[in-house]
Amino acid sequence: MASTKSVHHLMTLADLSVPQIRGLLSHSLHCKQISKPWLEPQSGKKQQLRMPSQSLFNKTVALLFSKRSTRTRLASETSVALLGGRALFLGSEDIQLGVNETPRDTARVIGGMAEGIFARVGDHAEIEELAKYSPVPVLNALSSLWHPTQILADLLTLHENAHLFAIPDLNASAEPDYKNMKSSIKTRTRAKGGLPELRPLTVAYVGDSANVLHDMLVTYPRLGHSMRVASPPKYRAPPEVWKRVEELGCDKDIWWGEDPKEAVKGADVVVTDTWISMGQEAEKAQRLRDFHGYQVTEALCREGGANPDWKFMHCLPRKQDEVDDEVFYGPRSLVFPEADNRKWTTMAVFDMFIGKWFIDPIPEKEKKQEPKK
Amino acid sequence: MASTKSVHHLMTLADLSVPQIRGLLSHSLHCKQISKPWLEPQSGKKQQLRMPSQSLFNKTVALLFSKRSTRTRLASETSVALLGGRALFLGSEDIQLGVNETPRDTARVIGGMAEGIFARVGDHAEIEELAKYSPVPVLNALSSLWHPTQILADLLTLHENAHLFAIPDLNASAEPDYKNMKSSIKTRTRAKGGLPELRPLTVAYVGDSANVLHDMLVTYPRLGHSMRVASPPKYRAPPEVWKRVEELGCDKDIWWGEDPKEAVKGADVVVTDTWISMGQEAEKAQRLRDFHGYQVTEALCREGGANPDWKFMHCLPRKQDEVDDEVFYGPRSLVFPEADNRKWTTMAVFDMFIGKWFIDPIPEKEKKQEPKK
Amino acid sequence: MASTKSVHHLMTLADLSVPQIRGLLSHSLHCKQISKPWLEPQSGKKQQLRMPSQSLFNKTVALLFSKRSTRTRLASETSVALLGGRALFLGSEDIQLGVNETPRDTARVIGGMAEGIFARVGDHAEIEELAKYSPVPVLNALSSLWHPTQILADLLTLHENAHLFAIPDLNASAEPDYKNMKSSIKTRTRAKGGLPELRPLTVAYVGDSANVLHDMLVTYPRLGHSMRVASPPKYRAPPEVWKRVEELGCDKDIWWGEDPKEAVKGADVVVTDTWISMGQEAEKAQRLRDFHGYQVTEALCREGGANPDWKFMHCLPRKQDEVDDEVFYGPRSLVFPEADNRKWTTMAVFDMFIGKWFIDPIPEKEKKQEPKK
Repeated sequence: MASTKSVHHLMTLADLSVPQIRGLLSHSLHCKQISKPWLEPQSGKKQQLRMPSQSLFNKTVALLFSKRSTRTRLASETSVALLGGRALFLGSEDIQLGVNETPRDTARVIGGMAEGIFARVGDHAEIEELAKYSPVPVLNALSSLWHPTQILADLLTLHENAHLFAIPDLNASAEPDYKNMKSSIKTRTRAKGGLPELRPLTVAYVGDSANVLHDMLVTYPRLGHSMRVASPPKYRAPPEVWKRVEELGCDKDIWWGEDPKEAVKGADVVVTDTWISMGQEAEKAQRLRDFHGYQVTEALCREGGANPDWKFMHCLPRKQDEVDDEVFYGPRSLVFPEADNRKWTTMAVFDMFIGKWFIDPIPEKEKKQEPKK
Repeated sequence: MASTKSVHHLMTLADLSVPQIRGLLSHSLHCKQISKPWLEPQSGKKQQLRMPSQSLFNKTVALLFSKRSTRTRLASETSVALLGGRALFLGSEDIQLGVNETPRDTARVIGGMAEGIFARVGDHAEIEELAKYSPVPVLNALSSLWHPTQILADLLTLHENAHLFAIPDLNASAEPDYKNMKSSIKTRTRAKGGLPELRPLTVAYVGDSANVLHDMLVTYPRLGHSMRVASPPKYRAPPEVWKRVEELGCDKDIWWGEDPKEAVKGADVVVTDTWISMGQEAEKAQRLRDFHGYQVTEALCREGGANPDWKFMHCLPRKQDEVDDEVFYGPRSLVFPEADNRKWTTMAVFDMFIGKWFIDPIPEKEKKQEPKK
Repeated sequence: MASTKSVHHLMTLADLSVPQIRGLLSHSLHCKQISKPWLEPQSGKKQQLRMPSQSLFNKTVALLFSKRSTRTRLASETSVALLGGRALFLGSEDIQLGVNETPRDTARVIGGMAEGIFARVGDHAEIEELAKYSPVPVLNALSSLWHPTQILADLLTLHENAHLFAIPDLNASAEPDYKNMKSSIKTRTRAKGGLPELRPLTVAYVGDSANVLHDMLVTYPRLGHSMRVASPPKYRAPPEVWKRVEELGCDKDIWWGEDPKEAVKGADVVVTDTWISMGQEAEKAQRLRDFHGYQVTEALCREGGANPDWKFMHCLPRKQDEVDDEVFYGPRSLVFPEADNRKWTTMAVFDMFIGKWFIDPIPEKEKKQEPKK
């Protein structure tokens, strides 16, 4: 983790402990629950509502984005607003960074006027350089190596849908007892700050080893989930990523092969991402050949032996190459709730890192810290 | 009208009933009156002011603009601010739409994080596609076919200047009795929620049949005004527009010919628009030939027999081709008040469609809905 | 000064009287002091804080920027937020100005919907044209000729660091009595609205005669400081700038030559700027030749006989050509506090010109005007 004495940056979830990750997930759900009523069409009952934390009141979060973005942009601008602050979007055409000025000088200047930096700047070394010199928190909005806020959104989505992954009770009637199941979840929910418990899952990732997968690799095993990954041999996680995986002891819960069917065996969740990201258009033909057979479909998962109730996730934007319409728009798909949750996890991260400068570990019972009104 | 079960989109004024249009105009004037004191230089008397509706408090309106814009951009960003919300501008360089992602996916994702979409996306089919899949209201900020918010601003401007169109009393003294006329207008104003009554006008449009004219065609006749249009034969409203005109029974109050002089006969208001919009630069030479003789001038209107008190309107930006400086900057011109009113009509539309999700019909006495302070 | 009847524009500091400049500096420091506590990580003691002036509440400041900008962008967007308003960034791709519409029409339209314009539009004549037709204040964010807000930031930085320029007392012990010095500064601070007094300085500028220097030339001598400038013969201030210098009687306190060493003689402060601004890349090779020997280094200043305690300032972005790393990142450098102060001086200018429409002269005791809370 890039870090100066007292400023906490976020480069990857590998920087965070398990309690910190769980704390951020709980806080994300809290942010969602407290904000939703404010976002309904205007009604006359506003006086009973509690406000979300206004920890960014009067503050500005600089969004340094060198690439197009829909989800990250929406999530960050809308959540900063809910926290009372201003997002200042700075695209690659807007500022001097990388054209007329060094990352060092830009980091110091922006950090002298804004209270936080959410950066999406291409090569991962660039954001490490920003973090090294910034006097305010630098959070990774996407880099060549990592994508921490995406995995937080994925985890929140899985926890919220924990009831979809109930362990089949072989002695029970064919129809699970949903009523009691929900009640049981509710009880645990209260005990755990609102976040439904999630049983250990088998998560399959089929496709290119890119930033989204990397943050899964350093996170899911630590939370009790096992991973199964299929990628063509030349699309493997780079050494610096694998080093973090091993340091955290995650490697022992990761199976990695070349066969998509083998990867989805027993999978509760199947995840993929585009094979051709922005900037990779030149390699498109080669990549389409390399990933032949990797498209996620009902047939693939049936033949591979996925859990019959398997769910599908994708960070978007999506192309048909990597997943067909039947899966993507079908009942297994969690992709849009997953996209929605980018907002709430980003809000939690901004609140803790930029608004409150949290001290380890993030308290689980975040609600008690809200100012009384 | 593109519309899902309970979400109201706005594609064209043809989607709205006459009471709804009148309701939006009344509400626009109300928004203007209540906001103006807030926009004066700071004084010490703020405590007596009423706030504009804060129906967008904590909410974000996504501005999807694929083209340059001055008025629409200013109007939307400044009015969202007055309603307590945030405008999130997304230009064609900013997001994945049309490059990396389908309108369907983008609409769902943006609608999951923002509370409304104001879209200016080229071909009209694009905004229909957005509306089809968006879970939040999609409002047309300008498309190839329609420009509803412009015509609302034009109508507000005409109503506010109703006294300029008083019916000449042939028995009266040469000088109209302005003092009593204003007083009489004031009385009606109070009775009608603030919006001055406007006598039936003859509105002439001289030029290209484009989005601005199309929304005039489906609206002015329904409000009691007759239209006279002159355009070269090949610049006629496309069939899908004319179909809406006929469905609404507007065609019987529309005269359409080729001669600008004939069009301005008896006109109280003369309107035009640029002949060469963004993206049409290639056809410039041809268009300049086709529209030869269509420039709005004092001479044209005098020779054509316009009402001697005729006024001029233009949606801007303006070129000299379609109107000369004498008219454009002269006392007949309403163009700048018309531009200013883009703000107040946009504010009313945002307040009703995005902040309050209005139920048909829009209540005329909007003031009673404002929260007491 | 471009000015209509009651609207005050700001084109250059030459437009302002000495009391007005001092008033803006005092107010800048006040803005900084009152805002800093709001910008700390969230604590529980907010109830004791005073708010900054909310003179831009519900108001929008349009930022018309035709060039990349980091500092000016950050300074304006963050300070508008602190004043309760919205900044609306309009880049060269966003609006019709200069492409489809005249400055006259654009100025009137923007001024009809926003409450102020902060413009960075290339040739100085462009901003004069905007100011001529705008109904709201137009403030110069940088033009080919002037850069007033930069010099305000420089002056605030010098005043805040006044203790670094204490006159050496030859009769005193080798170590200055810092404790009493600070106490003495504090006393004067209170008497003068918070702004520490600054002794008359010798300010050396080594480099290209550009907008930053021009505003120094019309300002520093009026505040009691003498200037020494070195530039190659063909890089001299243009006649329209020198005319303002002479009108204000500043020329008698300005030495201008070609030798950087001679320029820094006795200098308390050495200032430079990039030799190759945006848009001048084509002349790069020629400029590098012309400015050979102009790089600010320890050796240059030692050999030239600068005050041994000389400090360094630079408006950024910086290249190594004009100053080496030893000076730029060393203890003499005030460049980052100088950049930070762009925010507070911009805030003061916005508050007075746009929020409050100040009346001459700006009152020195600004605090008394703040609303009581």
